[in-house]
Amino acid sequence: MVVFGPTAVLYLTGFAFIPTERPMAMVLAPDRVAALVPSLEQEHVEATARVDQVVAYDEYPGTRPPPIAGLVRLLTDDLEIGSAALGVDADGYPARYGYRGPRLSELLPDNRLVQCGALIEDIRFHKSEQELALLRDSSRWADNTHRHLQDLVRDGANETEVAVQASLRGTGDMRRGLGPDFDPKSGGMLPTSGGFRSQIGANAAFPHAINRNLDMHEGDVLVTGASSSVWGYHCELERRMFVGPPSDEQRRYFDLMVGAQDAAFAAIRPGARCSDVDRAVRAFFEREGIEGCWRHHVGHGLGMEVHEGPFLDIGDDRPIEPGMVFSVEPGVYVPGFGGFRHSDTVAVTEDGLELMTRYPRDADSLVCQV
Amino acid sequence: MVVFGPTAVLYLTGFAFIPTERPMAMVLAPDRVAALVPSLEQEHVEATARVDQVVAYDEYPGTRPPPIAGLVRLLTDDLEIGSAALGVDADGYPARYGYRGPRLSELLPDNRLVQCGALIEDIRFHKSEQELALLRDSSRWADNTHRHLQDLVRDGANETEVAVQASLRGTGDMRRGLGPDFDPKSGGMLPTSGGFRSQIGANAAFPHAINRNLDMHEGDVLVTGASSSVWGYHCELERRMFVGPPSDEQRRYFDLMVGAQDAAFAAIRPGARCSDVDRAVRAFFEREGIEGCWRHHVGHGLGMEVHEGPFLDIGDDRPIEPGMVFSVEPGVYVPGFGGFRHSDTVAVTEDGLELMTRYPRDADSLVCQV
Repeated sequence: MVVFGPTAVLYLTGFAFIPTERPMAMVLAPDRVAALVPSLEQEHVEATARVDQVVAYDEYPGTRPPPIAGLVRLLTDDLEIGSAALGVDADGYPARYGYRGPRLSELLPDNRLVQCGALIEDIRFHKSEQELALLRDSSRWADNTHRHLQDLVRDGANETEVAVQASLRGTGDMRRGLGPDFDPKSGGMLPTSGGFRSQIGANAAFPHAINRNLDMHEGDVLVTGASSSVWGYHCELERRMFVGPPSDEQRRYFDLMVGAQDAAFAAIRPGARCSDVDRAVRAFFEREGIEGCWRHHVGHGLGMEVHEGPFLDIGDDRPIEPGMVFSVEPGVYVPGFGGFRHSDTVAVTEDGLELMTRYPRDADSLVCQV
Repeated sequence: MVVFGPTAVLYLTGFAFIPTERPMAMVLAPDRVAALVPSLEQEHVEATARVDQVVAYDEYPGTRPPPIAGLVRLLTDDLEIGSAALGVDADGYPARYGYRGPRLSELLPDNRLVQCGALIEDIRFHKSEQELALLRDSSRWADNTHRHLQDLVRDGANETEVAVQASLRGTGDMRRGLGPDFDPKSGGMLPTSGGFRSQIGANAAFPHAINRNLDMHEGDVLVTGASSSVWGYHCELERRMFVGPPSDEQRRYFDLMVGAQDAAFAAIRPGARCSDVDRAVRAFFEREGIEGCWRHHVGHGLGMEVHEGPFLDIGDDRPIEPGMVFSVEPGVYVPGFGGFRHSDTVAVTEDGLELMTRYPRDADSLVCQV
């Protein structure tokens, strides 16, 4: 099996790397794990990954033959695959950051390529006890960073400055709490961060707003996000908060959103299907007469990536099973007025769910003193 | 033409979005620009993108037919493409974050799909005057953040705390300098950031180390990075620094690295080829007898993405032309001892180059007082 995707590589071999235009691949063979890397990653992969053999090429684009030819030689000469079928998560290294190269199927015309990306994802759906422990830890530190975030909200404050200050405080806490051996295994700068992504005031009606560096003011609605990366695993935590006391209308939509989340929690259990959870929440929206405020499904798997399958979505009939981890985040969106969404990370247990993120969910706890 | 890639979408339509498992596409037709989006992005795309028509689907996975069918209907019914050839930057929405869906070629068997991802990249190689102005601005703010970074280095300091504090200070400066209309158009939390990515001490010998949250100590070598996002454009700035006075051996490798960068600057001019620049630097390594310290090519294009083509690489014979922007970053790596690399952003002019990042490059200026 040949794996190109950074998450699959980290999951299967422990190698965390920055994907660039330089092709990288891991080969999982019966007797060994072999890596194709650019020479600038050679010492890095040898020092940090579970690999038995490293084939390094000088550079991309480099001189002919192209780097990916080293992978073909590894498969044909060293591993002697002959005409065997080959599992792949992509038909060659993806065209990222200016990389242009041949498909693997062009270079290996005699081998049947079997798409195995979905198989690796399916395995990742079920978290081991160790993975659950890392996600529990991630949730604890996300809760803590979110506490700093809420403490820092002020009338007139800038979202970026609040976000960075909260992230800095949370990072300091994590360092002290986890000690010098702690390795976030995160490509980003911060092991924990919290922020608003400009979901502030009327802009909070965009579920996936992009950071626009806004100021916040008394009376605004805020949708927050906080997470932390613990050896490559991260939870999801989001809260709808109020800058100063909420209006009656704000409270009304807030309570509807909490009701929708409760409906989702109640529907998550082994034996149910992912679609059942979405159906329960859609029924709640209909019962309350707020179908027009619906924008997205209930949640998604997560763990190593910020979104993973399965999806708590009416179109996903996969069964819910112990060890799966989901975000639960039904949202109520009122255009021109604001968005209302909590997101919590839950793990499916033998008889229901474990709420991993524990930040308060009630309106009174989420009023920021300004 | 159908475009799925987030960078191409931002470049062609001004829409900055967070790519997820929910398929998104922009269709560029002779008479209009049309978008396929999930309903959670509908108001966002209408408010911020240059689009004439928006087709929204409820959700992914959602109920049958799959979301991508909305794109097919848009093409066949609204745009009446018949059996026309279709430019695409991918054969369907990529399998990211758990998305699984059909290829466009399966859904449109009568249309020849023409891969146009490379064409869009080629257009992006040449920066307009406006793009150059944004990159100049990005460079100025990166220089400023790097100044904070250097000021904060101390014996025993933690890299994450130094990085976050410098980024916070730089962000405050940017906000004050650019005013309330400033829009970083960045998916990240910070419009500017600086850090070390654990390229500290012996770990600096990994050119692409991952943040491991290290402490720095007197006598260590540091490789830094700083950038800033200005309306979606970002420069690259990296410096090799010293924690306290350098040893003679450190100074020797440092000077060799600066010499290699000077050799690259001298080779960049319109009419030369990208490969000429790499060849000039490799010749420098040979002349100095340090071929064993070579790990990667001289640099890469950049602008909207952190790496873009063309590449200052022996295998890239594309001509260097005015308006192209490159990182120039030959590195000298001594295993077990440290890595030596500056990276600067340069724009090709009619008669040579413009150095956009202006942070001091000499050893004395890069000794941190501890």
